Amino acid sequence: MKYFKQFVFVLLLTTAFPLLAEVSVSSLNLMPFPKNIVVKTGEFRLNADFSLALEGVGGQRIYVNATRMLRRLSNRTGLFFQQDFITAETRSDTADMIVKTTRIGRLGLGEDESYKLIVTPEKVTLSAETDLGAIRGLESLLQLLSADENGYFFPAVEIDDAPRFPWRGLMIDVSRHFMPVDVIKRNLDGMAAVKMNVFHWHLSDNQGIRVESKSLPNLQSMCSDGMFYTQEQIRDIIAYADERGIRVIPEFDVPAHCAAWMVGYPFLASGPGPYKIARYWGVFDQTMNPAKESTYEFLDVFFKEMAALFPDEYLHIGGDENTGKEWSANPEIQAFMKANGIDDNHALQKHFNLRVLEILTRYNKKMIGWDEIFQPALPKNIVIHSWRGYKALDETARKGYMSILSNGYYIDLIQPAEYHYLIDPIPEGSTLSEEQKKFILGGEATSWAELVVPETIDSRIWPRTACIAERFWSPQSVNDVESMYRRMEIVSGQMEELDLQHIKNYDYMLRRLANGNDISALKRFVDVVEPVKIYNRHFQGIKYASFSPYTRVVDAARPESMTARRFRKMTDDFIDNKNVGVVPELTAMLQSWKSNHDELKKTINLSPVLKEIETMSQDLSIISTVGIEAIEYVKKGKPAPDKWLAESKSALAQAKEPRGQAELAIAPTIEKLIRSCEK
Amino acid sequence: MKYFKQFVFVLLLTTAFPLLAEVSVSSLNLMPFPKNIVVKTGEFRLNADFSLALEGVGGQRIYVNATRMLRRLSNRTGLFFQQDFITAETRSDTADMIVKTTRIGRLGLGEDESYKLIVTPEKVTLSAETDLGAIRGLESLLQLLSADENGYFFPAVEIDDAPRFPWRGLMIDVSRHFMPVDVIKRNLDGMAAVKMNVFHWHLSDNQGIRVESKSLPNLQSMCSDGMFYTQEQIRDIIAYADERGIRVIPEFDVPAHCAAWMVGYPFLASGPGPYKIARYWGVFDQTMNPAKESTYEFLDVFFKEMAALFPDEYLHIGGDENTGKEWSANPEIQAFMKANGIDDNHALQKHFNLRVLEILTRYNKKMIGWDEIFQPALPKNIVIHSWRGYKALDETARKGYMSILSNGYYIDLIQPAEYHYLIDPIPEGSTLSEEQKKFILGGEATSWAELVVPETIDSRIWPRTACIAERFWSPQSVNDVESMYRRMEIVSGQMEELDLQHIKNYDYMLRRLANGNDISALKRFVDVVEPVKIYNRHFQGIKYASFSPYTRVVDAARPESMTARRFRKMTDDFIDNKNVGVVPELTAMLQSWKSNHDELKKTINLSPVLKEIETMSQDLSIISTVGIEAIEYVKKGKPAPDKWLAESKSALAQAKEPRGQAELAIAPTIEKLIRSCEK
Repeated sequence: MKYFKQFVFVLLLTTAFPLLAEVSVSSLNLMPFPKNIVVKTGEFRLNADFSLALEGVGGQRIYVNATRMLRRLSNRTGLFFQQDFITAETRSDTADMIVKTTRIGRLGLGEDESYKLIVTPEKVTLSAETDLGAIRGLESLLQLLSADENGYFFPAVEIDDAPRFPWRGLMIDVSRHFMPVDVIKRNLDGMAAVKMNVFHWHLSDNQGIRVESKSLPNLQSMCSDGMFYTQEQIRDIIAYADERGIRVIPEFDVPAHCAAWMVGYPFLASGPGPYKIARYWGVFDQTMNPAKESTYEFLDVFFKEMAALFPDEYLHIGGDENTGKEWSANPEIQAFMKANGIDDNHALQKHFNLRVLEILTRYNKKMIGWDEIFQPALPKNIVIHSWRGYKALDETARKGYMSILSNGYYIDLIQPAEYHYLIDPIPEGSTLSEEQKKFILGGEATSWAELVVPETIDSRIWPRTACIAERFWSPQSVNDVESMYRRMEIVSGQMEELDLQHIKNYDYMLRRLANGNDISALKRFVDVVEPVKIYNRHFQGIKYASFSPYTRVVDAARPESMTARRFRKMTDDFIDNKNVGVVPELTAMLQSWKSNHDELKKTINLSPVLKEIETMSQDLSIISTVGIEAIEYVKKGKPAPDKWLAESKSALAQAKEPRGQAELAIAPTIEKLIRSCEK
Repeated sequence: MKYFKQFVFVLLLTTAFPLLAEVSVSSLNLMPFPKNIVVKTGEFRLNADFSLALEGVGGQRIYVNATRMLRRLSNRTGLFFQQDFITAETRSDTADMIVKTTRIGRLGLGEDESYKLIVTPEKVTLSAETDLGAIRGLESLLQLLSADENGYFFPAVEIDDAPRFPWRGLMIDVSRHFMPVDVIKRNLDGMAAVKMNVFHWHLSDNQGIRVESKSLPNLQSMCSDGMFYTQEQIRDIIAYADERGIRVIPEFDVPAHCAAWMVGYPFLASGPGPYKIARYWGVFDQTMNPAKESTYEFLDVFFKEMAALFPDEYLHIGGDENTGKEWSANPEIQAFMKANGIDDNHALQKHFNLRVLEILTRYNKKMIGWDEIFQPALPKNIVIHSWRGYKALDETARKGYMSILSNGYYIDLIQPAEYHYLIDPIPEGSTLSEEQKKFILGGEATSWAELVVPETIDSRIWPRTACIAERFWSPQSVNDVESMYRRMEIVSGQMEELDLQHIKNYDYMLRRLANGNDISALKRFVDVVEPVKIYNRHFQGIKYASFSPYTRVVDAARPESMTARRFRKMTDDFIDNKNVGVVPELTAMLQSWKSNHDELKKTINLSPVLKEIETMSQDLSIISTVGIEAIEYVKKGKPAPDKWLAESKSALAQAKEPRGQAELAIAPTIEKLIRSCEK
């Protein structure tokens, strides 16, 4: 809370009049929270006469974004604004809102994204050095939209904002499960809404190469199962991202993660084949052959074409998880190593990477790759992408290399928002110098796609990634978890306007699971269910494939149950703070779960796909009864009987067992209640 | 009910054993209902070992559709089938399901779409002359999927099916509001699910030309506001439609509906300009100049390019709603008419059309156009598209011309499914000969886009268009409205799996309207609200533009309130059949509406966009009270007091007033209740 307290203090000094009850810094729904904000007296009232004009150096990006903001405001408020497209001609001294930009931003590492937003009762003024900064400010303004009985308004504020880190990324894996253009576009919109600026596009892996190549057409015709982006689609997505101030960095993972390449170009392989597109998950041995000149000739042709297609200065080469088995088993490769004095597979990959670096450099690209690529022979303009953690960042920074962090931001591992939020690329207490800290550029949330499909990906990315975006943008001191959750829920709701399906697909998936029957009991159940965490889903008796159904309860369940969280917070309040005021609501929640199974049983009988969670639904009823009884014991202040404790613990142990790769998210809280009845 | 009775009769003759209680012909959820179906004893049980193989002449279309069916089955059931892509190699004598096709269908008018589907407890056999017929059968099979406590199954049936009409279309207007590629694709999926086979793509109008032209690039750069389909996207959509057995017929509406063309090519104009893309709605005067040779030279270039881009044998030239004002006002055109002996604007349009026909013929296209194009000089291969009604069809058929019907299928006019369902292209009692009837090819539902946007279009098309699809496919005798509604609701739910947003966007729009607050009271209200009908929305004080917000209550409300319908049916049962058994549920509904306003008022106070329906919400409470009292009077069997009648009628008159271009769909039923208390 430090950060907010500081601002309340500033506020008292700067405002002579009492504030409206509703508007205070800590009540604002900004995410990421700005660097500096002062709430002033009064508000700017919005009505259908609202108009907007541009000053300074314009350009397509600011025209498009100003127009979009106007439409989004109109769609939320139902106000019939009279402006249609904002263009260079839209200049008016009578405009209610002015957007001033000094120059058109260059979309690249380290460009100025700062902005100042001043709302007074008379006028809204957004000024920025670059149009990129201005579009960040437009998103802040949209988040400021408020309402009361008199209508819509923006509270009077002065915001002076700039990002903490220049690299605020989201990686989407489109190889393991292909994601169509509209999925990418709506997620780019989501990124822009929370001021993220790097879309890392994981375009190749064992399960498919997702890019059309004019020079190497087997890539799309043989290595993609027909699921790839045409070059026109890629250019369209790059333009779409550019409009939103987002860089697009393609990843082509070499020399491992390469099973799909060999289907179209077998000569790339280190192993004997047969070459097949992988349809199951795991770490595979298929690796490009680093000993053959034809491999580099191929990569030269490929990267030349891709370097022209993707305008960003960086290109990601992956470089991770090479098992080395095919290299060790291939006599030609072994002979090559001996002839060239290469001692081991690690050194061989170094050799490979330097060859790839030489190709990229020729086509004016800088290299980025996962931890494994790091070696002292690399130039200082490369970027190390760390899945290993901030210690790796610390090390590379001391050596003068740039890096970004993804360890801790693996959103496919189904961890709570809080977990990701509290991980910092430069943790408090870092012993790096200020100069060294500058080598740590930021980070990326990573959406690996073994277990997501177009229908579910949005709910795996959002809203949790909004919290990661705040970590990358806002000052380090913005770290109040309760405030984060409050704002996350609101921003999550607003993200629906970007066509993101993270909320609406939940009910839809429940409708399908209920086989068209009423979903209320099913929803009450799945509301407190979460998928099993980390990689556990792969170790519970089901071998998932790309063509498996991802439509079961575990897929509908959200990564983090907000209901379970609320239940936990209230229980903490009851147990730790002895607040009995929460007991009626706690008990009501438990009662609703207790009686839920009888109702849900009927739906299960009509929909066999739910059979797998039948005993878990029953267990929810059972442990809810335990919870109700535990509350009574705690209230009485006497320890519970041993028999009750033994039976309750046994019921709980049973309830904690995952079913259908999902688990009851309230179980740990029930455990706390039981423990509180002991001694 | 005639049709179903007939089948129950057939059933009794053909089944020696008693049926399962759940499976009878009238309980099946098929839509469109097949021509012939017999339910047999038993069922085919589905499990993860299920496999499918192809026999006969294969090809990409059947591979893709068989694979898709497998995935859709898997997604619904959660079963982990082991087959991935079905290809020519997938042939197995042990397969549980066989799809047999004799030849690859030609996607064109009159191709064979019949199929036979036989489900026995041991095997599923789908056979068809063409792959087009087979994919219709796959959709039927998906609709047959059933479940009980033992799992999923297909009931044993024998279906022998073929369409009544060869032209079963949906027109989507993408000019007034542009619809991105994903909107088109998901609607093509919806069409395929109900066996429709013509996508009529209304690609140009006053509000924009939506097609990329290589030879006339101003069309996309100046006439589209940047919203158009690239030729690659068009080819992609055509391929997508082809895979689903759907023809794509482009419409370029000439010589009227042409304001957008003149922005890029002013020489086409009959009037003096200025030339602007229209952003408001209406019938405009801008018309191509039929007196200048340059117009035909332009159209020659344009249609030559489009004829190559769109493979279907037909091309739609619109031809409707020429006001003639610009022609009458242009001295050059008047002089041209005099010089060529053209008497009036009607004759001038005939002249224009014959010139266009000559161009189309040169590029191997047949012409289709709206009623206005009809003239005896046209060849017999043209198709007349009637917005005027079946009398026009009758006339043209007698003259030996082919035609299709859209009058009665204007789904943008927000009429109930029943209304569209009971309109027949060849009504019972038609005096046409059997030969003449063959000239009537079918019809098209038309989604004009003044008031729809990508977010709402699905709910305006579906599920009502499924009922129109049944009218075009099924025998004329399939016309039981209650059965239609029952099946429509189920098929509507299944359509969500095609990514159609017609159900899920309802709650989403309510969430936005509620400004993030709880939607339950708002939903209870909007559940009984419908948009005003026909064109009334344009005559209630708001001038809509392309950039207006389409996010208000009227846009969230469904075209037909199923809640209001259920309320009406129960009231009819109570009043007409004196069934007092329905009173408890009737009263409960009325009670929930009566108390709703107090709750909704709180949401309205937090969300100014709801202000416009505040008095309507209050009126819902008031007339629900009236309804409750009326039921009491009816039950007592005594007329209500005059004072009560007068006050109730006055309250009802007030409640019937539209607010926010929406109206209370239960008002007519309350009126019936009041009337029942009279005399």
